[in-house]
Amino acid sequence: MTDFDEPTAAAIATTRADVARLHDELVRYGLVVWTGGNVSGRVPGTELFVIKPSGVSYDDLAPENMILCDLDGHVIPGTPGSDRSPSSDTAAHAYVYRHMPEVGGVVHTHSTYAVAWAARGEEIPCVITAMADEFGGPVPVGPFAIIGDDSIGRGIVSTLTGHRSRAVLMQNHGPFTVGASAKDAVKAAVMLEDVARTVHIARQGGEVLPIPQQAIDSLYDRYQNVYGQSVDDRRSAS
Amino acid sequence: MTDFDEPTAAAIATTRADVARLHDELVRYGLVVWTGGNVSGRVPGTELFVIKPSGVSYDDLAPENMILCDLDGHVIPGTPGSDRSPSSDTAAHAYVYRHMPEVGGVVHTHSTYAVAWAARGEEIPCVITAMADEFGGPVPVGPFAIIGDDSIGRGIVSTLTGHRSRAVLMQNHGPFTVGASAKDAVKAAVMLEDVARTVHIARQGGEVLPIPQQAIDSLYDRYQNVYGQSVDDRRSAS
Amino acid sequence: MTDFDEPTAAAIATTRADVARLHDELVRYGLVVWTGGNVSGRVPGTELFVIKPSGVSYDDLAPENMILCDLDGHVIPGTPGSDRSPSSDTAAHAYVYRHMPEVGGVVHTHSTYAVAWAARGEEIPCVITAMADEFGGPVPVGPFAIIGDDSIGRGIVSTLTGHRSRAVLMQNHGPFTVGASAKDAVKAAVMLEDVARTVHIARQGGEVLPIPQQAIDSLYDRYQNVYGQSVDDRRSAS
Amino acid sequence: MTDFDEPTAAAIATTRADVARLHDELVRYGLVVWTGGNVSGRVPGTELFVIKPSGVSYDDLAPENMILCDLDGHVIPGTPGSDRSPSSDTAAHAYVYRHMPEVGGVVHTHSTYAVAWAARGEEIPCVITAMADEFGGPVPVGPFAIIGDDSIGRGIVSTLTGHRSRAVLMQNHGPFTVGASAKDAVKAAVMLEDVARTVHIARQGGEVLPIPQQAIDSLYDRYQNVYGQSVDDRRSAS
Repeated sequence: MTDFDEPTAAAIATTRADVARLHDELVRYGLVVWTGGNVSGRVPGTELFVIKPSGVSYDDLAPENMILCDLDGHVIPGTPGSDRSPSSDTAAHAYVYRHMPEVGGVVHTHSTYAVAWAARGEEIPCVITAMADEFGGPVPVGPFAIIGDDSIGRGIVSTLTGHRSRAVLMQNHGPFTVGASAKDAVKAAVMLEDVARTVHIARQGGEVLPIPQQAIDSLYDRYQNVYGQSVDDRRSAS
Repeated sequence: MTDFDEPTAAAIATTRADVARLHDELVRYGLVVWTGGNVSGRVPGTELFVIKPSGVSYDDLAPENMILCDLDGHVIPGTPGSDRSPSSDTAAHAYVYRHMPEVGGVVHTHSTYAVAWAARGEEIPCVITAMADEFGGPVPVGPFAIIGDDSIGRGIVSTLTGHRSRAVLMQNHGPFTVGASAKDAVKAAVMLEDVARTVHIARQGGEVLPIPQQAIDSLYDRYQNVYGQSVDDRRSAS
Repeated sequence: MTDFDEPTAAAIATTRADVARLHDELVRYGLVVWTGGNVSGRVPGTELFVIKPSGVSYDDLAPENMILCDLDGHVIPGTPGSDRSPSSDTAAHAYVYRHMPEVGGVVHTHSTYAVAWAARGEEIPCVITAMADEFGGPVPVGPFAIIGDDSIGRGIVSTLTGHRSRAVLMQNHGPFTVGASAKDAVKAAVMLEDVARTVHIARQGGEVLPIPQQAIDSLYDRYQNVYGQSVDDRRSAS
Repeated sequence: MTDFDEPTAAAIATTRADVARLHDELVRYGLVVWTGGNVSGRVPGTELFVIKPSGVSYDDLAPENMILCDLDGHVIPGTPGSDRSPSSDTAAHAYVYRHMPEVGGVVHTHSTYAVAWAARGEEIPCVITAMADEFGGPVPVGPFAIIGDDSIGRGIVSTLTGHRSRAVLMQNHGPFTVGASAKDAVKAAVMLEDVARTVHIARQGGEVLPIPQQAIDSLYDRYQNVYGQSVDDRRSAS
């Protein structure tokens, strides 16, 4: 068993508990089926992150079977859960943590409406105020990339860097979301599917009305900086 | 702690319990995600209303963290929950209470189909008898307005004043509903999403049939005045 | 309190329990919102039926608040629940029981997809084998009729008499289903919404393939006469 | 009561428990209504399989009312559940087990989106990576065939033999899925509805982008051979 100093061990334990529990939100909001989808969280103050194991039922996820990895996506031997394989998307998560130091959490799902936009390679236009609040504009599309090397991670990072959106629709694949914490990334995944569904349905009924850019900027600025009970809740307000 | 006389304290306690519990209906009917959406209720016989706190999970709502406000939307200091911020839509609720004395409850959601109509700025035509019963005709669209001043509240009041509908679709934003009580406003929010979804789907399949205006008038009149077990249930019948 | 002989009292008690419990299926399958929708069941061997009260939450339905009526739809005084009003659709249920002696149960909902077809006044074509099994062909549309006299009941009876379908889509209003028992009528309501949704979605994607009439006849005949564990389950097989 | 040797009796007991429990997944993912749908599992090392009874509520399924059949679909007399009729689709399941020795489980549902494609007789194109992973390409359509002889079984086997897909859409009817085990076939049924829905919605919004055949091959190969925690989990990874 690897030895960690006390504060690191405590931070790992907290992150394991948070990441395990946050998977319940993916189920609650219908973003995943079977064992699909995954949440990870960076362990604050370390070069480590915690991620879901591969192929384990959502009913069976617990802090002790979450898997601890370094920022190259290698499992830390001798830690709880290290006898299992981490999520098959671990390399993509690791790439994001290595290249986006401000990111504390990453989520990947195949949620229906987000994947539908991704299958057309079409960004989601910002036509509802909830999108302006949460994503600050359209949700962009990332390149087609398949598992096996760093191409998914590179596509996420190159698309999101310098973009207001915390979500990217990887073409023909599905969404990845990032956040200041694992909870924040899960919130982005939930809100993304909500706006992907709403804008899809809006367009099915006819032409949607644009929101002026100035109003989008104003909504985004206010939502990111003014709302909420505390720094932690800043992105959770209503 | 602010001192209220006994009847006022009792009315506040009842309103806190009602408003807290009614949020469960928004979850039950899938009208909200994460911490979005809010219910408020006027405290009968006072110049006060109770509203949801900002950024608190639906799992954690309870009478004691509901927030008591005056009709300008200011939190009453020293009351339970007053250490938190009220819903970011508090100013709009307050405006409605100040200008529509008959309103005892206000609800705001981003429910999918209602927002879809709002994103097109299109009123929902009254083509099903349930809409005639509940809304007495089409559900109207209110102006585009963003948070920060009274413009949302003004848009709600100017659209609903003199209109049969208890629901308004604020353009590019989403629905606000009002009612004689918080429960009545929640019922309107639930029925609104139901008819928004049904009429959307009806139109996707081809041309819908109009209902003659005389039949709409007759249905509305009967539903509002005849049905139900008592005054309280008048809008809950079937 | 009205006196019934022992077998009648027992039959009433069983019907109350069945009808109360069957409402849970409407909720389970998402066919109703708020207090909408209603189930009734004929009391075997009597000129009576049991129906849901008006405006009571689905959470609060119980055998003792179901309402006992005669076949003119009048509440039997002095029986449990007789202090409340019966469903606002009671007159339509009563009309069906008076004119269709083979009917033991009636259900009315505003389920989304069935209402969508009703809003266009369009019958559901029989393009999936499950429809042939259950309804023996297309599901027909009944006339536009509003509450207040026998016109809804007459529309149901005139449409369903001599028709294989146990479901009718009342124009601009919604579905009524009938069955040999209340359970059978509830099953028809559940299956109706399922096929209304499936055929709607099938058509959204392009042209649907017809099923030859001979195959429809063969499927209907087999399903109604061969399947199931017993007479009671004949319509419940798979 | 039929006598089985100890290992056979144990294998039967395990299969009964698995098959009974796996039906819960059909309910959880909304693939079935009322008593529709069925799961079966081959008893390893025998010429037997276990299948759902006909017309029994999902709430009442238990290991002891699952029905044991030989590979001609005849119920084994004197075994638990043998007083009931097996699923009306038993002949089709039996045909598959006789002709596809590699198949350990079969599932049939009328899940909405899969049936919608089947009603148009249209294969589901492989435009999302999750489909490439799971099905290795498009999901094919099988012939129109009605209950009463071996024609459904023959249609399933002739369509799936030599095809990567573990799912077939029987025209105007619905999906059958197969797998190495009952769990694997259930997973295929769940994933099928997910991709049927997602691709339908993607196409409603406009033109979908193809995935290059080489990428499909690479994804399928990797998913079937590399992922997962063990042989058992190979198809459950993420």
